[in-house]
Amino acid sequence: MVQRITDKGMKVSPSNIGSKRDNELDYIFYPESVAIIGASENDFFFTRALLKSKIKEKLFLVNPKRKKILNVKCYPSILDVEAKVDYAIIAVPAPIVPQVLKECISEGVKVAHIFSSGFSETGIEERIDLENEIKEIAKGKIRLIGPNCMGVYCSESGLTFSDEVSFEEGPVALVSQSGTFAVDLLAVGSTMNIKFSKVVSYGNAIDLDCPDFLDYLADDSKTKIVALYIEGAKDGRRLKSSLERLAKQKPVVALKGGMTEHGSRAASSHTGAIAGSPEIWRALFKQLRIIHVETFDEMVDTLLALLYCPLPQGENVSIITFSGGYSVVETDWCAKLGLNVPQFTDETTKKLRDFVPIAGTSFKNPLDAWPIFNSGVLPEAVKVVGLDENIDSLILHLDSRFLWRNWRTAAEEHFKKFLENLLNACNYVRDELKKPLMICNCPPPILECEAIKYYLQVQKVFQEKKYALYSSIDRAAKSIYNLCKYRNMKYKNINKI
Amino acid sequence: MVQRITDKGMKVSPSNIGSKRDNELDYIFYPESVAIIGASENDFFFTRALLKSKIKEKLFLVNPKRKKILNVKCYPSILDVEAKVDYAIIAVPAPIVPQVLKECISEGVKVAHIFSSGFSETGIEERIDLENEIKEIAKGKIRLIGPNCMGVYCSESGLTFSDEVSFEEGPVALVSQSGTFAVDLLAVGSTMNIKFSKVVSYGNAIDLDCPDFLDYLADDSKTKIVALYIEGAKDGRRLKSSLERLAKQKPVVALKGGMTEHGSRAASSHTGAIAGSPEIWRALFKQLRIIHVETFDEMVDTLLALLYCPLPQGENVSIITFSGGYSVVETDWCAKLGLNVPQFTDETTKKLRDFVPIAGTSFKNPLDAWPIFNSGVLPEAVKVVGLDENIDSLILHLDSRFLWRNWRTAAEEHFKKFLENLLNACNYVRDELKKPLMICNCPPPILECEAIKYYLQVQKVFQEKKYALYSSIDRAAKSIYNLCKYRNMKYKNINKI
Repeated sequence: MVQRITDKGMKVSPSNIGSKRDNELDYIFYPESVAIIGASENDFFFTRALLKSKIKEKLFLVNPKRKKILNVKCYPSILDVEAKVDYAIIAVPAPIVPQVLKECISEGVKVAHIFSSGFSETGIEERIDLENEIKEIAKGKIRLIGPNCMGVYCSESGLTFSDEVSFEEGPVALVSQSGTFAVDLLAVGSTMNIKFSKVVSYGNAIDLDCPDFLDYLADDSKTKIVALYIEGAKDGRRLKSSLERLAKQKPVVALKGGMTEHGSRAASSHTGAIAGSPEIWRALFKQLRIIHVETFDEMVDTLLALLYCPLPQGENVSIITFSGGYSVVETDWCAKLGLNVPQFTDETTKKLRDFVPIAGTSFKNPLDAWPIFNSGVLPEAVKVVGLDENIDSLILHLDSRFLWRNWRTAAEEHFKKFLENLLNACNYVRDELKKPLMICNCPPPILECEAIKYYLQVQKVFQEKKYALYSSIDRAAKSIYNLCKYRNMKYKNINKI
Repeated sequence: MVQRITDKGMKVSPSNIGSKRDNELDYIFYPESVAIIGASENDFFFTRALLKSKIKEKLFLVNPKRKKILNVKCYPSILDVEAKVDYAIIAVPAPIVPQVLKECISEGVKVAHIFSSGFSETGIEERIDLENEIKEIAKGKIRLIGPNCMGVYCSESGLTFSDEVSFEEGPVALVSQSGTFAVDLLAVGSTMNIKFSKVVSYGNAIDLDCPDFLDYLADDSKTKIVALYIEGAKDGRRLKSSLERLAKQKPVVALKGGMTEHGSRAASSHTGAIAGSPEIWRALFKQLRIIHVETFDEMVDTLLALLYCPLPQGENVSIITFSGGYSVVETDWCAKLGLNVPQFTDETTKKLRDFVPIAGTSFKNPLDAWPIFNSGVLPEAVKVVGLDENIDSLILHLDSRFLWRNWRTAAEEHFKKFLENLLNACNYVRDELKKPLMICNCPPPILECEAIKYYLQVQKVFQEKKYALYSSIDRAAKSIYNLCKYRNMKYKNINKI
């Protein structure tokens, strides 16, 4: 395992950024110094973002047309930078990239991240030739990330491709063949308790490719969970071997683009990837015990579940809700996914009957009990259901419109107290009983309404205590399903799949 | 067809509310006068809601414990109301309902809506007996809606069970076995251009049942589209015959609760419904050309599509987006649903090449072209794609975070102008080329951020022009799929299914 000198929270002085180098690719995530070739004040991805990060102290801006950018000195060429640069971000039009790359090599730059696009992914012959030219220039002399990609984010070193993120360290890493996914997952994550160790967008991958990064992350002690977006592999055998090694050590959540004929054609236009047969990918993910997701949102949801829920002991789910209609439809939804919504034990039903009114409610699981969503009794119900031996996971359905309907005449401090008690009950179930508990906090359909206040309060209280929050029961249920799938894959020798 | 005297927009004076009676059930939607038995100022469903509606002028409040409620006279019993009441809302504890019902009968009330729950749906023997007692009391003397339901909303007459709605008339009707669905669809709809003619929540249906309301709506000239939430049928043959007659005249969107073993048990706890086999229901919906949806959200989405999109000529969809990764995954999603994302014609590709930069973009469909989302060129691209003969429907992917990234340094009026031009291009495609165009307006993951401004502006501009707006491409694609399915069912004799 790679051991960083800089533990979480320790201030890193410029001189020791990445001073410990155990892995061949360490200099990519922990460069001594960085240059942006094609810097500009309109560039929020690199120029503005890196000037806000601690990389700033070892950052050199290059742009022949400018003397200063945002009050920082600007060099006409990398050749003019007096210090040694080991990481260059190249953000110039594609036809100029070969020249810039030669200059980087002559300056001893170790790795160039080519942000520029307009190469093989266009499908145009001269652009494919241009990409091949770059490949030839670099061979044996400099490592390349890209072209056509966002490059590298590392919370610890301060390297980034976005100014929308914090540098708070976290256990999740992402390797992505899509730049937008990388930018978006970082941005979304930073708002909802998904914090990252490293993120890589690797684009056309003419040198460093997905398996290189997967190998690195397998050994990276800062990374506990790996997310992957992939459209195709240049060397399937190598990818498989890297994924296998990685997935043996850490949970891997994979989104594969191009799983249909049309999607595969779209992938080929996007990154030139040959997508391969969906069956082979599905079998690969299953064999290697990788959690296969189908959308960006499902990836976010599954990461949240892995981060903040214990693994469930089985597929038995309870839904606690305020509506008979929703309770029926959502039970259908769970069942279609492959989860069970079994009846409570007689003991649970008896206990619930003691304090849940019978009119308009149902006690059997789903627990459909609108009258307790505006009383002090809901927390007790959460505990009672959590204790039921038939139940492995809980979904608690809080709807902002319903809360508004029931709390709008109450004093604000009463609602706060209600939420506090509810949180305590949830903590008991999740942290002491060790059962996954998903909070389903449904926003109102429009934002300019009174119900939004209840949505935001629920969001705040439960996010502070790091709950897996979902905007619909569908998404919460799919996340429980993915946890079950992972658990079953992980312990496949001792449990059913 | 039923012809109302009161056309849209015409003021209805109390004396002519429902004065024209062509249908046996007209007095249910257009009562001469209404009483709330169990009125209270804490009752937002009826007391407060009806006092805000034009029903107010013919409304009588009954509560033996109060002299006045919200400054309106309150009667100790329905027996004390001097006027003739033909519609009574009974909102008293279940055990008192028989007595209240007898009083209603003696006063000549035509229909009683029993809001109270705590009857057969509890599964408790004495409560089942209580329900049977009510049934016996009412037989031949008064019509009943419920018990255990929200009752009736009618935009034209002002009858309602919610204070969260407008009374703006619209073409959608809902018949629902779930009260929350009825309240929520009305509330959600009123914020997103889904306006209603009538909504019925019918609960345990010991007298008036789903088929009665379906029959009424089939003949109701104010209703053009019918949404249905159902858990089970007491008389399958009768339901089928009513649905058949209705679906021959109007599009029907149906959500069936209890389509799995666990869901079916939940349904039985909810409304005592015997859910029946999923296969039979699926076959029924298909045979009768009913659009079968699986979640509440899908119902909302499908209604929006039916209301504001022309029917597509085929399954060929184009996605216009700003991200290669999303374009690939969303193409997969469309293909998995059964839609096609075919290549553009050569002519379209050629036209697009004239003004879309090649670097980092893709021209083949999906159109992945981030550089045009912050220029004046996107509207032109929408038109070019709309004109492509290979394309039947369009999804335009606008993401608030992406818009923020690209427009944050621009002057506000430039973004307004951009949206205006975009709207004009969309109008051309939808209204002149008659192709469905879905706007996918993705909100940011948290609301307290700068991107929300862009989300709200897009929402405002396109909702004003009554576009079908969706929060994700998944939902937009499913709605197109449902339109295709409906079109194919409708014209099944002349087209493929």
